[in-house]
Order: sequence, then C-alpha cells, then structure tokens
Amino acid sequence: MTNNSPAFDLSGSDALKAAFRNHASGISVITALDLDGNPIGFTASSATSLGSNPPLVSLNVAQGSSSYPHLLPGRFVALHTLDSDSLHLAQRFAGDKAGRFVGDEIDGPEGLPIIPQASSVLIGKIREKYEIESNAVVIIDALTASVMRTPQEPLVYFQRAYHAIGNKLADND
Amino acid sequence: MTNNSPAFDLSGSDALKAAFRNHASGISVITALDLDGNPIGFTASSATSLGSNPPLVSLNVAQGSSSYPHLLPGRFVALHTLDSDSLHLAQRFAGDKAGRFVGDEIDGPEGLPIIPQASSVLIGKIREKYEIESNAVVIIDALTASVMRTPQEPLVYFQRAYHAIGNKLADND
Repeated sequence: MTNNSPAFDLSGSDALKAAFRNHASGISVITALDLDGNPIGFTASSATSLGSNPPLVSLNVAQGSSSYPHLLPGRFVALHTLDSDSLHLAQRFAGDKAGRFVGDEIDGPEGLPIIPQASSVLIGKIREKYEIESNAVVIIDALTASVMRTPQEPLVYFQRAYHAIGNKLADND
Repeated sequence: MTNNSPAFDLSGSDALKAAFRNHASGISVITALDLDGNPIGFTASSATSLGSNPPLVSLNVAQGSSSYPHLLPGRFVALHTLDSDSLHLAQRFAGDKAGRFVGDEIDGPEGLPIIPQASSVLIGKIREKYEIESNAVVIIDALTASVMRTPQEPLVYFQRAYHAIGNKLADND
C-alpha cells in the first residue's frame, strides 16, 4: 500500500449524501392497507434482497413517514418493480397523497392494492422491524410474485434524478 | 378497484428472485481489515442509505461469507462507489479472493485499504448488526467521505448482469 490517500474532506451527513449521490438504486412502489383498510403507498429506493433461503426483503423507512405506523409485523405489503417507462408511477407515489390511488389499482392477494402497470409485484408479510435512530429497517418475508412482462428496463435513481438503465456491460452468472 | 388480478404464480424464493431480477441495484466494493489486520473486500449490491440525520448505511451480508466474522460493531469499513468504467473492480472483488488486493490500494483512514479508482469512498464504523435467518443487516455510521470525480456514470446490477446507467428521465429535487 502507498500513503497518498485522497482527502477525506467531507463528514457526517455531507459524506453520506455525496457518496450515495454516486451510487445508483432501484425504484419500487410499496403498497399496503392502513389499519382502517384504506390503500397506502409510496415510492421507495431502499428495497433490497436479504437472501433467498428463506426469501427475505429489507426496506428502510423513516419512522416519521405517514406509512410507517401501518407497517407492522404480520401485515402484508406489495412491492412493485418499475420499468423506465413507468416514471409516472414513481412520481405519482412520491407526490401528493391524494393523487396516489386514482382508481386504476387492482384488488390483489390479502386485499392489497396492486398497480397493474408494474413490471412485477412481490407480495410479502412483515416479519419484524428494527428501529434505529429516526429510521427503521423493515424485514419482509417474500410470499408470492407475479411477473407482468419481460424483458424490462428498470427505473434507476441516481444523482437525485430518475434514469433508465444503460448498456449491458457483462454477465455475472 | 377491480378484481382481475394478475396471477401470483410464483412463490417463496422463486418469487423473490423473479421480482428482484426486475429491480436494479447499485454496486459498491466494501473493504475492511480482518481481525489480523489483513485487507478484505467484496462486491456488494445491498448498500443502502438509512437516513442522513444521523448518517447511516445498511448493508445486507450473508453470515456464511468469509468477510462476515470480521464485520463486528466498532470496526471500520470503506464503501467504494463505482463508475460503469470500473466494471473490472466489481468483477475483481466478486472473484477469487487471492486476486482482490493486487497492490494498487492506498492506505486510508483507520488503515483501511482504499481502491483509488472508485468514484467516491465513504468511511464508516459498524454500529450494530441484526442477524436474520442466514443473513444479517449490518448498520454503519457514516463518518467521512472523499469524492474522487464528478460527473459519474454508476455501475448498476440488473438481470444478473452489470449495466451502465442510461438516459436521465426526470429530476427529483
């Protein structure tokens, strides 16, 4: 090793934000029913696989979000993956709450509101949640899925903007 | 809502895998020192921001991985974001362990091995870990960062292959 290290001149939240602006993430829309049985949903960039045996998903959620009180262990969620031509869905579920459910949703498993324009929908049951400072990691057991179409061009988030996927560089099978 | 739900004909790990094949993820290389002070590193597709106040990162790791015993609370890690022209780094740190550190690394904060071709490096300290079945969610406090260059074209993982980022579709400021 050499010692000419680059300058680590950013700290704390500035450090986190700068590094993660250079890191892409996939975009999904999470829907569920609130405790009164009404549909809720939001755009997420934190859905991540947590192993396939058993199949689990982790989802990072702010405890201050309006959805968080309804994401309780034992309750169900639908994770919708989005193609790049579904930018409008990502924007809709990140926008004004009154405009998120506009009547085009379908009644899915466990009564979950399903957005049929998604590229696939994964139904999961919340197993537990870990609260860490003002956020939480929600652990979800994957139950069933429907793949609406293939091939897909997923929606990607990077540098505070939505992007399409680009060229395939190499397989990793 | 209407009732013509799509068929949820996949279950368990097949369901998880099918949905996440349609979901993009960013690629990073995580480096650390093992308990003997030797460099270790691996390619990850699970690094996710967990809020910026305080700045935290979650990282999903298989407990069976060779790195896992060294990812203990109180220890430091370096998260490297990768551009699409750094495909070789993603492949190197996903490949044979003997070929991961080839002498081009730099001695960074806390003695961490830093890969200078990364687009940015975030230094973090492991806060805690939650073990769930055969995997774990590792929670990391973000400390400092160095951004090597901008603009960047991040490396994205999708459909079991590495991709470049594509067209910008819309800002989300």
